[in-house]
Amino acid sequence: MRVLVTGAGGFIGAHVLALLHRQGQVGGRRIDVLAAADQRLGTLPAGVVALEGDLGSDELLARIAALAPDLCFHLAAVPGGAAEADPALSRRVNLDTTLDLFDTLAAAGTGHAPPVVVYASTIAVYGSALPELVTPQTPLRPPLIYGAHKLACEVLLADFSRRGRLDGRSLRLPGIVARPHAPSGLVSAFMSELLHALAAGEPVTLPVGPEATAWWMSARRCAWNLVHAATMPVGDDPARAWPLPVLHLSMADVVQALSAEFGVDGHALVRHAPQPDVEAVFGRYPPLDDRIPRALGLRDDGDARALVRRALAPAGDTGDF
Amino acid sequence: MRVLVTGAGGFIGAHVLALLHRQGQVGGRRIDVLAAADQRLGTLPAGVVALEGDLGSDELLARIAALAPDLCFHLAAVPGGAAEADPALSRRVNLDTTLDLFDTLAAAGTGHAPPVVVYASTIAVYGSALPELVTPQTPLRPPLIYGAHKLACEVLLADFSRRGRLDGRSLRLPGIVARPHAPSGLVSAFMSELLHALAAGEPVTLPVGPEATAWWMSARRCAWNLVHAATMPVGDDPARAWPLPVLHLSMADVVQALSAEFGVDGHALVRHAPQPDVEAVFGRYPPLDDRIPRALGLRDDGDARALVRRALAPAGDTGDF
Repeated sequence: MRVLVTGAGGFIGAHVLALLHRQGQVGGRRIDVLAAADQRLGTLPAGVVALEGDLGSDELLARIAALAPDLCFHLAAVPGGAAEADPALSRRVNLDTTLDLFDTLAAAGTGHAPPVVVYASTIAVYGSALPELVTPQTPLRPPLIYGAHKLACEVLLADFSRRGRLDGRSLRLPGIVARPHAPSGLVSAFMSELLHALAAGEPVTLPVGPEATAWWMSARRCAWNLVHAATMPVGDDPARAWPLPVLHLSMADVVQALSAEFGVDGHALVRHAPQPDVEAVFGRYPPLDDRIPRALGLRDDGDARALVRRALAPAGDTGDF
Repeated sequence: MRVLVTGAGGFIGAHVLALLHRQGQVGGRRIDVLAAADQRLGTLPAGVVALEGDLGSDELLARIAALAPDLCFHLAAVPGGAAEADPALSRRVNLDTTLDLFDTLAAAGTGHAPPVVVYASTIAVYGSALPELVTPQTPLRPPLIYGAHKLACEVLLADFSRRGRLDGRSLRLPGIVARPHAPSGLVSAFMSELLHALAAGEPVTLPVGPEATAWWMSARRCAWNLVHAATMPVGDDPARAWPLPVLHLSMADVVQALSAEFGVDGHALVRHAPQPDVEAVFGRYPPLDDRIPRALGLRDDGDARALVRRALAPAGDTGDF
């Protein structure tokens, strides 16, 4: 089978690419061609086809059409903070280009079954005034343009699936750790900064209080879930969009796990300077009813210690995803 | 104030234009300029500015920018059946052009407050497997590409509102009667055919059974609701999308009202030839919890007799909307 990963030069994309390359198959079907698309691609695993450039350009879409992927992981996006600062860019990349890609994949489909698209959506579709428990009935009220465009694409991918043009599976990714130390455009980057700082025994200032709760997942476990989603049986749910099972942890829980794992004094190293707007969006996540995604075989990291261990494993580590 | 009606050459648009022209004001503010946009415009009321052409063209968008509307009723759309037959056309008109219009209106806004956009969404956002009662918590599962594009625009109009760029109000229109005898591209056109036929004492065949239930509203009452929505206080509901209060009637209820109103034998004139796909989408609407839109001052037609009377009033009638 022919597999494409967009956003493959990014944080999560690189983990997905590494996992696919190591496995060499998806759901028992051998990967014949593995292609990586991104604005800029670093060093790729041996044999991976590089599609470097603007995903929305005619040139790159033509190369994708020629590749005719059986399976696409669509991760390329302008992240939340950057999208909010430039709504026109968010529309172009997060909406228009995504729909152009879906159209291209559908038109290029050659097999008996429509091409599978695993779409990286976001928990930012839910909103900031959440109920005591988030369920499949929780109304979707994206509080940022990033979440609004992601939700629109979920809805439209579900429609491609209904029409039999694509086999879409949208996963609503939570804050994923640990992003590399670099400007990411994500307001939630502080979650990763916390992990890096305590692992290195360095001080860190958080824009939320110790009781702020979030939904956590390591990049490796996230990559595993995305690959699992490609072949999981989805039944007849017309929306084809699920949150991932998550660890619902406070900042204090994560500080404690890091302190134990790395033998540091987390309470001394962490300073809290809560910003109300950040706390409102990223610090008040309630428990999540994730029974449906669990039944589909999707998984969280297990516990806080396993989360920080997996999140901070070196890039070349071939261990647990 | 400057007011624009898109889709003004269409069935509902013409009623909105007529009502605005007659009132000469909206919410107490005098209408200084009333403009009508559509692919083709018929005879317009005196003084109405005609913007004829493709709404998505640079030329028409430039004319709209120059007009700088304070209020826009956006009704132009490719309807359900036609959209399903041509998904690319639906994307262009129902999604891309709508977002281009929103961008143009936001950029042209000149007043203290952002331009108001009353957006004609659809009950087709809900889906075909509805619960026993449709509530604000009912998950949205559009069963046609038309509904998927409308839902995407609801979400994105809400985001323009959140960002303070537009003041959006999406109303989810039910099947509106009585459309003129003409191909409309709407699968639900049979609802209007029923009214015209019995009013004329002619036989009609329906693609649903007598017990099929739908949500009904006359075009005049729909126009009244759209104009009311422009100035109703919407509070802090971030989604800014509401269904209209509707009459929940079976085909038999409507046949009975028509028989009484026009002195015909409806049971003899109506033949039922149920088509399962049409019945599934248009014949199984459950009751609607419309307390929130009622509290906003939106209204149904009153009862079945008033519905058919208002629906079949001649075009020039200056009576009840």
